[in-house]
Amino acid sequence: MTDSKLVSSLIEDNLPNFSNTFVPTRLLLGPGPSNANPEVLKALSLNPIGHLDEAYLELMSDVQKLLRYSWQCNNRVTLPMSGTGSAAMEASIANFIEEGEKILIAKKGYFGDRLIDMASRYKANVNVIEKNWGEAFSLEEIEFEIEKIKPSIFAIVHAETSTGVLQPLEGIGEICRKNNCLFLVDAVTSLGAVELFIDKWQIDLAYSCSQKGLSCPPGLSPFTMNERAEEKLKNRKSKVPNWYLDLSLLNKYWGSDRVYHHTAPVNMNYAIREGLRILAKEGLRNIWDRHLVNSQKLYKGLTELGLEMHVAEQFRLPTLTTVKIPSDVDGDAFRNHLLKNHGIEIGNGLGTLSGKIWRIGLMGYNSSSENVDKLLNLFDTELKKFTIFQSATF
Amino acid sequence: MTDSKLVSSLIEDNLPNFSNTFVPTRLLLGPGPSNANPEVLKALSLNPIGHLDEAYLELMSDVQKLLRYSWQCNNRVTLPMSGTGSAAMEASIANFIEEGEKILIAKKGYFGDRLIDMASRYKANVNVIEKNWGEAFSLEEIEFEIEKIKPSIFAIVHAETSTGVLQPLEGIGEICRKNNCLFLVDAVTSLGAVELFIDKWQIDLAYSCSQKGLSCPPGLSPFTMNERAEEKLKNRKSKVPNWYLDLSLLNKYWGSDRVYHHTAPVNMNYAIREGLRILAKEGLRNIWDRHLVNSQKLYKGLTELGLEMHVAEQFRLPTLTTVKIPSDVDGDAFRNHLLKNHGIEIGNGLGTLSGKIWRIGLMGYNSSSENVDKLLNLFDTELKKFTIFQSATF
Repeated sequence: MTDSKLVSSLIEDNLPNFSNTFVPTRLLLGPGPSNANPEVLKALSLNPIGHLDEAYLELMSDVQKLLRYSWQCNNRVTLPMSGTGSAAMEASIANFIEEGEKILIAKKGYFGDRLIDMASRYKANVNVIEKNWGEAFSLEEIEFEIEKIKPSIFAIVHAETSTGVLQPLEGIGEICRKNNCLFLVDAVTSLGAVELFIDKWQIDLAYSCSQKGLSCPPGLSPFTMNERAEEKLKNRKSKVPNWYLDLSLLNKYWGSDRVYHHTAPVNMNYAIREGLRILAKEGLRNIWDRHLVNSQKLYKGLTELGLEMHVAEQFRLPTLTTVKIPSDVDGDAFRNHLLKNHGIEIGNGLGTLSGKIWRIGLMGYNSSSENVDKLLNLFDTELKKFTIFQSATF
Repeated sequence: MTDSKLVSSLIEDNLPNFSNTFVPTRLLLGPGPSNANPEVLKALSLNPIGHLDEAYLELMSDVQKLLRYSWQCNNRVTLPMSGTGSAAMEASIANFIEEGEKILIAKKGYFGDRLIDMASRYKANVNVIEKNWGEAFSLEEIEFEIEKIKPSIFAIVHAETSTGVLQPLEGIGEICRKNNCLFLVDAVTSLGAVELFIDKWQIDLAYSCSQKGLSCPPGLSPFTMNERAEEKLKNRKSKVPNWYLDLSLLNKYWGSDRVYHHTAPVNMNYAIREGLRILAKEGLRNIWDRHLVNSQKLYKGLTELGLEMHVAEQFRLPTLTTVKIPSDVDGDAFRNHLLKNHGIEIGNGLGTLSGKIWRIGLMGYNSSSENVDKLLNLFDTELKKFTIFQSATF
């Protein structure tokens, strides 16, 4: 084959002209991603440097120190995985389950289903306890099932983004230890926004994401594991059936050895360092308070407008509020109106809650009194335009 | 447990003050990452928007169209995976190998070993042919082994970043079809920089990365598969044992259905759209020529300085040049000097070539005549300071 033949065969005839990359400005008050802090976006756009450059290795150490603070733990193995939240979710399954091992998954929303799907792909013996979408488990229910099933891992979602439920976690760690079981927590929508104590609550494994409490774009998934989890990993009989998410290899790069594993997404790591720096500067206690106060202001305002929350007050998640769509309102049309005409994104329900609730996120940088006011004003002035009988003429 | 007890237990006493995130400016002339185009970094730092926002879905379509052009293919399933290059490498194994199936891997460097490791984790029947690090396979050698082994997949690295070898690929696709075998190509260091024709060369599966030919930061891995590969995926007996990289699920999001899979790394996708837009504007033929011309200028200059290339001229990779470290030179000291005192990164050899070669990358945005001049000047003036007997006194 000659070069001239290759030239003539270039597939390019139908390629249109593409304009410079541009996206509209949005205020993201849905289930995530949330808006990134402008300082984070500045850090994100610094020039890449090598993933084995000393300056980068130092930055990695900073990220790890700051992550330990945000997780409230002293775990040696604490690192951001090079993928979005589901990557670290999968790592938590892939590394700690061997074929036939029992996992008990407490499912009360969409992300419980995802855990079940993943665990079955890794050939776990999957056991599930279920709650309605909008409820939380009691400690007694969890204890009863763990003692009955005797799983190797008990997995639960701390903050269910699909339902707006905050699952109380205190006490579960103790039950898991008594039953020789690892305690795995999905903290995707709680890390850096809602009270969470990895060490104190005896959580053995946890993962989160970058685009919610940490005010970064999506792309990294913070992960932490303690010595009990390390021990289980060390005693595996088989190789981890996943190379990219193999924690022993990842830890050689993030640990003191700094052995090359995969090329790190360096710019995303600049971003997360900056997000975590800003978080540490404000202080966790202040951040948790801020999220609580703003969510309560939102409930109050929505209630005054005659709307009803989906979750009982004691289990409401400060980062994500689920609101019942009134039966005479076209929920999708209102949501699209907010997005198209006011640049504000709120979320639809997932799965069985689709069309029944809206999901309103106040996370990280976006959890502010001003954003609550802005949204409440729009609910006040715009919602009435979307009652079913009027929506056709609007 | 009361709130006040929680407050008192915050782990924060030892947290130092962190300065704003900063990294030094580097000219990255190593094996990758390469410097990103400044326009790409601008796009990267746009505000995140929702991964189901119409504006984002449009951007995804652009990325796919532009990727098809850069791959020179019409494959429906063409998308960037949400991880660095190794993620798509793993996807190419995880989705297309079932337990016990034969894979034949042509290994001639470090990344062949990675393919072997991955394939064995997915319980493939792994067969390997080997070449010395610095050589390429002939078509006859490949044909002989494929006909002998009769694998389901034949995998080879197009551009071996560990050795600087460009493997000729023409003709292999035909052999694979004759033998009912999928042809899998690692194009991590060739996409967008070196001649590559997915359709014409009958390549069934290929993956790459964002941080080399595409002039983006690391974080995404372009992937493409044709109908033969789709057919094999559809006929799997078992579920793909990897959720994050499951191509049927990914394709529901990137295909016409737009069904949510995982939260996309939206900002990295802004970046890759911009990188691909700039690539399309320059045109593949011009880009390939530019990389060729600059690499030849580099060989010529280095040779004139008395240095020797590691790879025979006909197999040299335009994106990455491997140079023998003269026996009387402290290679590490010279490399560190370039980085610390001149802000230029070049790479050490990997594996068995560590300490024996330097790896010089001229990729994407960084493949310019000016960068070649800059580096040649430094080799001319600085290298002599690092001969073994003088290095101690320098």
